[in-house]
Amino acid sequence: MKPKQDWKEQAKRAVAKEAVKNVKNGFILGLGSGSTAAYVIKEIGKRIQTENLKVYAIPTSYQAMLLAVENRIPLTTLYEYPEIDLTIDGADQIDKNLNMIKGGGAALTREKIVASASKKVLIVADETKLTDKLGKNCPVPIEVLPFALPHVIKKIEKLGGKPVLRQAKNKVGPIITDNGNSIIDVDFGIMEIPEKLESLLKSIPGIVETGLFINMADTALIGGEKGIKRLKKV
Amino acid sequence: MKPKQDWKEQAKRAVAKEAVKNVKNGFILGLGSGSTAAYVIKEIGKRIQTENLKVYAIPTSYQAMLLAVENRIPLTTLYEYPEIDLTIDGADQIDKNLNMIKGGGAALTREKIVASASKKVLIVADETKLTDKLGKNCPVPIEVLPFALPHVIKKIEKLGGKPVLRQAKNKVGPIITDNGNSIIDVDFGIMEIPEKLESLLKSIPGIVETGLFINMADTALIGGEKGIKRLKKV
Repeated sequence: MKPKQDWKEQAKRAVAKEAVKNVKNGFILGLGSGSTAAYVIKEIGKRIQTENLKVYAIPTSYQAMLLAVENRIPLTTLYEYPEIDLTIDGADQIDKNLNMIKGGGAALTREKIVASASKKVLIVADETKLTDKLGKNCPVPIEVLPFALPHVIKKIEKLGGKPVLRQAKNKVGPIITDNGNSIIDVDFGIMEIPEKLESLLKSIPGIVETGLFINMADTALIGGEKGIKRLKKV
Repeated sequence: MKPKQDWKEQAKRAVAKEAVKNVKNGFILGLGSGSTAAYVIKEIGKRIQTENLKVYAIPTSYQAMLLAVENRIPLTTLYEYPEIDLTIDGADQIDKNLNMIKGGGAALTREKIVASASKKVLIVADETKLTDKLGKNCPVPIEVLPFALPHVIKKIEKLGGKPVLRQAKNKVGPIITDNGNSIIDVDFGIMEIPEKLESLLKSIPGIVETGLFINMADTALIGGEKGIKRLKKV
């Protein structure tokens, strides 16, 4: 018997395949993290093996790096190539303006750096990630220096957020990010003006980065049961 | 023969002694970093030994922590005490509005977190640190995730800054901060509106914290050849 949400995995695979059609010979690529981005990495690997596609990739996490190596994608860094031609990444929540919440996989900081260094950012997601308003049933992951955690939590509560320190599995205590920090998942409720919240959060010392991605994506491919929808930044 | 700037060390010691008079029994203290803050730590230690003063302190660096231990100041963390009664810290440059540039000792991020967590922030400095305009002959230290460095440098150059990666001594290559990151020292020239620059810088992914301290200090004690001047936030 097939699991109920089997269409979702199929949709993720389909948008990944469609997204990778945008990769051209000679591209410097940003590799996103998470389950949909993992399909993207596999598809890039396939094109390298079957079409002799030449690219160099910059991974946004330990996960993406290992997966890229496994799929024989040659790696590079921002030190060699400070400008990226195209980044393909997933999202935890995305609205019609292509603003997003990211960080379910705790890779938000490097994802945001890589997106910021990219000429084009293409988002791949299944349609359960689409929302009319950011923050609806979706907390915002925030990367915090462990030293500052109690202070950041106090400041965020003053802003009306409800922070929860993300706990690890297969390790005691909180998770540690690839940058050596903590993640708090903050319920802010529905956000009417996410850019304002973003700017308030970024002013709190001890916050390394937030999972609010405002004006960063150019295009999104949204996979559903009935095919792929393409959203463009307006 | 005395060195020419001997008055400067005397001034630092004098403001440190004056500043520590503000420490009360039962206080949670933030301990700054750098040469003037080091005198503060020694003075607090003296008051603990001679007056049986009871305080707990949160250091802003490895340096401050070691010095506090040496001076037998009991330590704590923001986890036990997320609110600090008083922080006494130095500055590399300070203007009449008590806005500052900090980070010569690469401790700016924890200094800013501790200042932000403090009810009162008292700055101690010799008068060579006073300026009419921030940025005059004083670069702004910025803490950057090593992963993001080439990207952050590009973005800062677009803002008109001239960044230099801070090199280590007694270690090959760049310095590593107490948080595991890099420091760039950025010449922005004279800043007319430092709060605007601060907000632009904080929006760049990969910047952990900047050495611009805007609206953080309450009082400054400035030591000169002719005594101590007290500046208040207007």
